[in-house]
Amino acid sequence: MTPLLSALAGDPEIDALLSDDAQLTAMLSVERALVQASAEVGLVDPAAAAAITTAIAAFAPDHAALAAGMARDGVVVPALVAQLRATIPQPHSTALHKGATSQDIVDTALMLQTAKILDILQTRLGELLARLADLRKSYGERPLLAHTRMQAALPTRWGDKLQSWSDPLQRHLSGLEAMRGGLLVIQLGGPVGDRRSFEGEGEAVAATLAIHLGLGVASPWHSARDPIVALGDRLALLTGSLGKIGADVALLAQTEIGAITLEGGGGSSSMAHKSNPVTAELLVALARFNAGLAGTLLQAMVHEYERSGAAWTLEWLTLPQIFVTTGASLRLSLKLCDQIRLT
Amino acid sequence: MTPLLSALAGDPEIDALLSDDAQLTAMLSVERALVQASAEVGLVDPAAAAAITTAIAAFAPDHAALAAGMARDGVVVPALVAQLRATIPQPHSTALHKGATSQDIVDTALMLQTAKILDILQTRLGELLARLADLRKSYGERPLLAHTRMQAALPTRWGDKLQSWSDPLQRHLSGLEAMRGGLLVIQLGGPVGDRRSFEGEGEAVAATLAIHLGLGVASPWHSARDPIVALGDRLALLTGSLGKIGADVALLAQTEIGAITLEGGGGSSSMAHKSNPVTAELLVALARFNAGLAGTLLQAMVHEYERSGAAWTLEWLTLPQIFVTTGASLRLSLKLCDQIRLT
Amino acid sequence: MTPLLSALAGDPEIDALLSDDAQLTAMLSVERALVQASAEVGLVDPAAAAAITTAIAAFAPDHAALAAGMARDGVVVPALVAQLRATIPQPHSTALHKGATSQDIVDTALMLQTAKILDILQTRLGELLARLADLRKSYGERPLLAHTRMQAALPTRWGDKLQSWSDPLQRHLSGLEAMRGGLLVIQLGGPVGDRRSFEGEGEAVAATLAIHLGLGVASPWHSARDPIVALGDRLALLTGSLGKIGADVALLAQTEIGAITLEGGGGSSSMAHKSNPVTAELLVALARFNAGLAGTLLQAMVHEYERSGAAWTLEWLTLPQIFVTTGASLRLSLKLCDQIRLT
Amino acid sequence: MTPLLSALAGDPEIDALLSDDAQLTAMLSVERALVQASAEVGLVDPAAAAAITTAIAAFAPDHAALAAGMARDGVVVPALVAQLRATIPQPHSTALHKGATSQDIVDTALMLQTAKILDILQTRLGELLARLADLRKSYGERPLLAHTRMQAALPTRWGDKLQSWSDPLQRHLSGLEAMRGGLLVIQLGGPVGDRRSFEGEGEAVAATLAIHLGLGVASPWHSARDPIVALGDRLALLTGSLGKIGADVALLAQTEIGAITLEGGGGSSSMAHKSNPVTAELLVALARFNAGLAGTLLQAMVHEYERSGAAWTLEWLTLPQIFVTTGASLRLSLKLCDQIRLT
Repeated sequence: MTPLLSALAGDPEIDALLSDDAQLTAMLSVERALVQASAEVGLVDPAAAAAITTAIAAFAPDHAALAAGMARDGVVVPALVAQLRATIPQPHSTALHKGATSQDIVDTALMLQTAKILDILQTRLGELLARLADLRKSYGERPLLAHTRMQAALPTRWGDKLQSWSDPLQRHLSGLEAMRGGLLVIQLGGPVGDRRSFEGEGEAVAATLAIHLGLGVASPWHSARDPIVALGDRLALLTGSLGKIGADVALLAQTEIGAITLEGGGGSSSMAHKSNPVTAELLVALARFNAGLAGTLLQAMVHEYERSGAAWTLEWLTLPQIFVTTGASLRLSLKLCDQIRLT
Repeated sequence: MTPLLSALAGDPEIDALLSDDAQLTAMLSVERALVQASAEVGLVDPAAAAAITTAIAAFAPDHAALAAGMARDGVVVPALVAQLRATIPQPHSTALHKGATSQDIVDTALMLQTAKILDILQTRLGELLARLADLRKSYGERPLLAHTRMQAALPTRWGDKLQSWSDPLQRHLSGLEAMRGGLLVIQLGGPVGDRRSFEGEGEAVAATLAIHLGLGVASPWHSARDPIVALGDRLALLTGSLGKIGADVALLAQTEIGAITLEGGGGSSSMAHKSNPVTAELLVALARFNAGLAGTLLQAMVHEYERSGAAWTLEWLTLPQIFVTTGASLRLSLKLCDQIRLT
Repeated sequence: MTPLLSALAGDPEIDALLSDDAQLTAMLSVERALVQASAEVGLVDPAAAAAITTAIAAFAPDHAALAAGMARDGVVVPALVAQLRATIPQPHSTALHKGATSQDIVDTALMLQTAKILDILQTRLGELLARLADLRKSYGERPLLAHTRMQAALPTRWGDKLQSWSDPLQRHLSGLEAMRGGLLVIQLGGPVGDRRSFEGEGEAVAATLAIHLGLGVASPWHSARDPIVALGDRLALLTGSLGKIGADVALLAQTEIGAITLEGGGGSSSMAHKSNPVTAELLVALARFNAGLAGTLLQAMVHEYERSGAAWTLEWLTLPQIFVTTGASLRLSLKLCDQIRLT
Repeated sequence: MTPLLSALAGDPEIDALLSDDAQLTAMLSVERALVQASAEVGLVDPAAAAAITTAIAAFAPDHAALAAGMARDGVVVPALVAQLRATIPQPHSTALHKGATSQDIVDTALMLQTAKILDILQTRLGELLARLADLRKSYGERPLLAHTRMQAALPTRWGDKLQSWSDPLQRHLSGLEAMRGGLLVIQLGGPVGDRRSFEGEGEAVAATLAIHLGLGVASPWHSARDPIVALGDRLALLTGSLGKIGADVALLAQTEIGAITLEGGGGSSSMAHKSNPVTAELLVALARFNAGLAGTLLQAMVHEYERSGAAWTLEWLTLPQIFVTTGASLRLSLKLCDQIRLT
């Protein structure tokens, strides 16, 4: 998404949490926590853990070399580990990344990033629910002509409409909260996902690593991607519910219906009289876009063997966009609450 | 799906629960429970409820007229109610469907059907988990060469592979069980979803109706379809996990790899020596198909106004297929457990 | 799709061309043409061709055994050939299906079926264009208030609206016509798609087979499915354009806008005054459904090796539905032309 | 897509043609050509056209203000025109954008950008076909064990495999070439798509504008998006065919099969012996991603009224990604040709 399109349909706050820098920082946190946990369980020398911790604090990656490594290896970790390892004094460098595989680092880092993103999304969703509750308090008793199947039906009240908008959002907020425990867990499997590379200390390393990172413990899930894909689904459900609000607002703000007017509607280059329901339309577009992304992410469930480069890369192409799309949709929903005037 | 294709990729047991007869039976159950609940809360005459209950017991629908009504009205309920009403002695006929709208009947009936379908799916999933646990008990210690990114990696054990198959299935089983409470609820909103058509007794009718039908109570959700769409997502996640098993089996059963052999593999019309991993391939195909259907169902979240004929119909085109596809995928997974021989 | 749903959103004429009987008939036509072509090029004994032709004429398949074969082999041809072969007097039975593989038969039969389906779709599309041209002739000069971005914009004329509906349909008609040559071709590859099983006569058999069946010649395309998937795309484009018409009609027929009224709109079970734009809504639902199916069909492009059971089955799950959905959308568009009254 | 992910799965050359700067340059070219065409047909004063041409040459947009306009209006043109207009000496400024609507500018600019992108894609596709032809010339007679339904089948030759890869690519190249005429056309409709805003000179302005820009003439297609969506479909077909090549390479390069080895395969952070088929896996991932995007783009066919902000924005979210994904897939396919060694 270019900067101009992002100004319309993106989300800079979520973007920042998904940047290369944010990912690299998260991956270095995982490597640091891993060596510290490994030291605590006796798998590596504590002096090595200290040396690696120091090296990580001072590490400045060579981005061009990382990009070259990414293009060659299909994952950035081999190049990152090689760069970092070169800065670690001997004999400690082999303790870095010991027992781990690239996917352990990338997936655990993703969970660190996801935790922060969920915080933002849940906060915004809570704010939106509060805004809708305010609207309901203020305008709930006002009459509204209901429409079914695109035809005027019978009078109802704005309170009913606002409840029909809020109910699913409340379910999504609860649903996101309920997912956190099972989702925000470490990934630790080693090369083939059986933790044998940790020389009998796999369970202990995993438990300690999880504590260091503030994540939950789980069996290795290299090739079992359901928690991640389920998150994508839940976020698409959320943007779907926001898209429904957008559709209602665009319909109710039609010139001939006029049940809503919009402050700060979009201008036209050719028709000065128009006030376009841009924000509402965007909610519809983002709902359909996210539905598509979530459907594509579901295709990434079919992992070959113990690790599928194809399916894993497909996640990388979709999940970040689902985060940004959801963030944008919530951002715009809050904006829409500022814009709508019930008549 | 024609009978031949259904023999391969369908599910007759689920089909039966989604047939027109099954739906009509469920809708008549809802109408009966509604009039009884309405009588109990004083909204209709108990004699009318009795007369309608008797009429429903004797009712034989005119299917051709129902089909014509469906084609005309976009929903079968107006024709169904008209047919049924004609069999009710006066002055009781107006008590039928009193306060309700077509969507109340169709959606609540769907929940009755869904409850039965979920019972089957969960039972099968439980059986599958038991079968995988048996395999793990028998063969868990056997060595297996792990593959990552389509290349031989390192030795692991079958127990690890089988756990990586079972873990997500266990999560899906828990996930389905957890959804039931919020999903299997009545729909009762009246024409525009505000229950005012029940003359002040809407909440009481809803609570009583729910008890009659063994469903939960919920606010009207005519235009808030997240519980239904979330079910589609969960089922696509399930078939995705089963597709991953299928992909693994097809790969491990490759002639050159031979980590699995299959009893009863498919024959070829031109190569007598072949034993094709038909069941495993089907799991992949059904996973991708269900992913697509779930993505399309997500597009049905964007409801216009208080009821969208377009979005609602899109559910009808997708959700039943998701049920059948999931049923078939579980059926075939159980078959696959019979077929695989670990070498 | 159950009969009731099919009455609303299905297409019996297209269904019939996709039935098991229709497919079996087409496959038997291919087997007959194949043995005749093989006799003509000297690959099999003309007496065998005659005996097989006679046997095919008398053949009554055992449907239960075919279904069992389909479930076992993943394709019906092995069972079909076995049944048919049993009816052929010796020494001729080995000439049946000689050199061919199941996919040759299924794919070529599909092209025979597709040719008939395209005839119907193109005919309906031509009729629809004629109807829109009639409307334009009658009402083209009538004023219509244009709307952009869901807001009243400026006055235009119905003629412009009708042209904007017709232009893409004209392109789809041309597009379908242009596809026929490259699409409606035989499949003949033998077991692994190289025609070597035809003992040096592969090109000759292919050319003769094509003439017998009225199809074009092409290189084997067992694993190159682009013509089929491109057809699905084109049909989804067509239903997308029809969905746009449906969206316009539903919007313009809104009570408050009233630029269109609809004869024979759908009735409501609770609001006698309503006339719902059921047909228009269906066009939107079918457009979104077909878009989803076409997107899923695109996933079937990724064939493994010389033949992918997974990808091929995914076609079977989607392409027939695309045909039916497109047929239904055209059927309903013609109905909509009968219903709309421009005001 | 972040820079790191883009190094793996992106395309800098296509990115550059889709940047904000590239779009702004294209839009200014359209505005300049429009005023010049309008002058030529007598709609505006030639002096105004000269003044505006001079102003465009000197114009330096205020990007922050453009972003703010984009966020407010849902399209950047109103802010762009306002900024540019402020630099035009009176009385000429009203001649800028005269008769046009934002969509005329954005869509026509998109066609200028698309022409360049298609040039690149077609060039790469041509190169890829040449590379495959070279491989066929060198290795076509080498034996290859064919596999069907994931099982070893019969011996064939590499020439047949390479032909099965090339045939669909040849069709895509022809298909893209054939689309250019109908696709690369101007958009000129004015506010509501009827060209009446050009005061009777609409057809003349359109014809002249097209000549200026080297594009074809077409009726206004504000709400008829089939040419654009059809392009997305064709590109997804192309990446689907490339994904099939990727799937084959990954399968044939399996350690146990070894029909292909790969130079420069990806390294692992934990298993030094591995050479991962990263490029091949990427082709599969990009095929599935593009299939999803094309399916979502098909949802954008359903435009409301004379212009749908929701559907149009959905195009912006998908089509550029389809271009980049296709570019990346072709780029990586060429890289794969360098990497594969047939054994």
